[in-house]
Amino acid sequence: MVLHMPYLLFLGEETNPLKAKTAFGLRDWSAPDCIGQTRLPGGGIDLGLPEMDPAAAAAAGARSLVIGVTPVGGRIPAHWGPLLIAAVEAGLDIVSGLHTPLELVPGLASAAAHSGARLVDVRRPPDNLPRATGKRRSGKRVAMVGTDCALGKKYTALALARAMRGQGVDADFRATGQTGIMIAGAGIAVDAVIADFIAGAAECISPEAAPEHWDLIEGQGSLFHPAYAGVTLGLLHGSQADGLILCHDPLRTHLVSWPDYPVPGLAVARDLYLQAARLTNPGARLVGVSLNTSAMDDAAAQEALERAGRELGVPAFDPMRSRLDQVVASIMG
Amino acid sequence: MVLHMPYLLFLGEETNPLKAKTAFGLRDWSAPDCIGQTRLPGGGIDLGLPEMDPAAAAAAGARSLVIGVTPVGGRIPAHWGPLLIAAVEAGLDIVSGLHTPLELVPGLASAAAHSGARLVDVRRPPDNLPRATGKRRSGKRVAMVGTDCALGKKYTALALARAMRGQGVDADFRATGQTGIMIAGAGIAVDAVIADFIAGAAECISPEAAPEHWDLIEGQGSLFHPAYAGVTLGLLHGSQADGLILCHDPLRTHLVSWPDYPVPGLAVARDLYLQAARLTNPGARLVGVSLNTSAMDDAAAQEALERAGRELGVPAFDPMRSRLDQVVASIMG
Repeated sequence: MVLHMPYLLFLGEETNPLKAKTAFGLRDWSAPDCIGQTRLPGGGIDLGLPEMDPAAAAAAGARSLVIGVTPVGGRIPAHWGPLLIAAVEAGLDIVSGLHTPLELVPGLASAAAHSGARLVDVRRPPDNLPRATGKRRSGKRVAMVGTDCALGKKYTALALARAMRGQGVDADFRATGQTGIMIAGAGIAVDAVIADFIAGAAECISPEAAPEHWDLIEGQGSLFHPAYAGVTLGLLHGSQADGLILCHDPLRTHLVSWPDYPVPGLAVARDLYLQAARLTNPGARLVGVSLNTSAMDDAAAQEALERAGRELGVPAFDPMRSRLDQVVASIMG
Repeated sequence: MVLHMPYLLFLGEETNPLKAKTAFGLRDWSAPDCIGQTRLPGGGIDLGLPEMDPAAAAAAGARSLVIGVTPVGGRIPAHWGPLLIAAVEAGLDIVSGLHTPLELVPGLASAAAHSGARLVDVRRPPDNLPRATGKRRSGKRVAMVGTDCALGKKYTALALARAMRGQGVDADFRATGQTGIMIAGAGIAVDAVIADFIAGAAECISPEAAPEHWDLIEGQGSLFHPAYAGVTLGLLHGSQADGLILCHDPLRTHLVSWPDYPVPGLAVARDLYLQAARLTNPGARLVGVSLNTSAMDDAAAQEALERAGRELGVPAFDPMRSRLDQVVASIMG
């Protein structure tokens, strides 16, 4: 699944920035590919991008309108229909990560068929995914793995890809979830594939590459999660990672929304992830530990980073506040 | 998904018993629910059941025609259509584990709509599966786990359920694959569910039960398999197993069809499975080791069983040739 950039970001009538995480993520990580924003009456989110309607965006070079907000219930409200139809009539693809399949928006499929625009539901995996082969492929890969869901695996991979490219390294962020796919412009939502094909999808997400090419692969879930560990394991096996970055939130004692399940210790997590990764890549090693210190002050964050780095013997960093030289050196070393 | 028994077993024009494993499995494990067999001209498989056409089977009480053979390619040949239509016209459900969706057999869906018969593709999971909760539920559960795929996990679970019921224990075989579903008359093909719902499906497969009730849960894949381990892990987590039976083929050095992947040692496999199982059931323990000794003579089998039992410190058995008293005592102990 390859998306057409650049994007016009659609913000609906949203006023709550927490419901616009997709839009902010795209602005922060795909800035050169975001040429404008469009809102409905009452909308209060401002990304700081030029305001333009779909026709103006198309004229300015946009190729897709991306739905950057998540309404309550994750569904597309009926009153969005006219703007979405105007966008496809202007030739823009529609890119959505919401639950409502775009083809169920009344009038949108026929308008798209007429203009040639595509309706892209990024949650929906491609048809005909292969089963995993388990065969090693060339190129190098780093997998983000975590002690829980939702603690910064995507941003860690994005920050590392950016830092490595900044050093002239041939590196790509590889997306495995919907926001990541929009940022990368490609990828597969691995949690939405048929179970037999998880590892096969992961092999497709980071395909054979030049020997010195690096993929930074977004993680999903956690091996310590009672609902999602199967996705995590299949993704890790298919990724055939050379390096693992363990992602962790030092303030979290239990899995988010799962109070019966404690967050594992860093060393326990490292050991299980390495054992799993070595099934398909016997040379896998831990190359860094990424802490989400967003809720800590500088001193507390610094102390947590020092403690984690000492415990695991690898560079510890917070992708949003640390320099990344050491971890990049560790990855490439 | 609950199937309607008893069954009429359809054998097509098959002559190769290896292509009729489903039919033989049903005859061996669901004998009271198999009231007849029906063949097309040229068919050479004989299950030893009364020969009857669909109308006669329906008159004799059959409620489903089960496709018990696998044609080359796993698809339903066009010339089976008239017999399948005759079966639904006689009021029989059609139960299939083949790739071709039954509703794509020309004329079958309309005939079924007319007669009220159901077209049941057992590969297809139910809609609206829940995500796993990770919450403990009452009843006791034993999960079959393996060092590889296809080494006797289903038959181990079936044999243990039969042995436990023979001792008056309230026990059920729980099916996670297509042949098992046909045998049990219920279950979910876990490898066909959307990845996010593997553990949730497993929670549905062995639902809350009376405190002294035992579920013997068919396993799938292997944690050591580079393509299917995600399914195995999600199934294990959702099963919340109290006991694990480790299934193994002593003659197998590498995974079937995966020559780059060695079969793990028994102790290595035990340790990883126990660690995984204890995420959702901290009391999980290994209660037996099941060896597939079908290709070994009595002396070699005996030696292999003694060695495995000694190595793991639990009863070792071959479900097809051993007495099961010891392992049943170990399960219940």
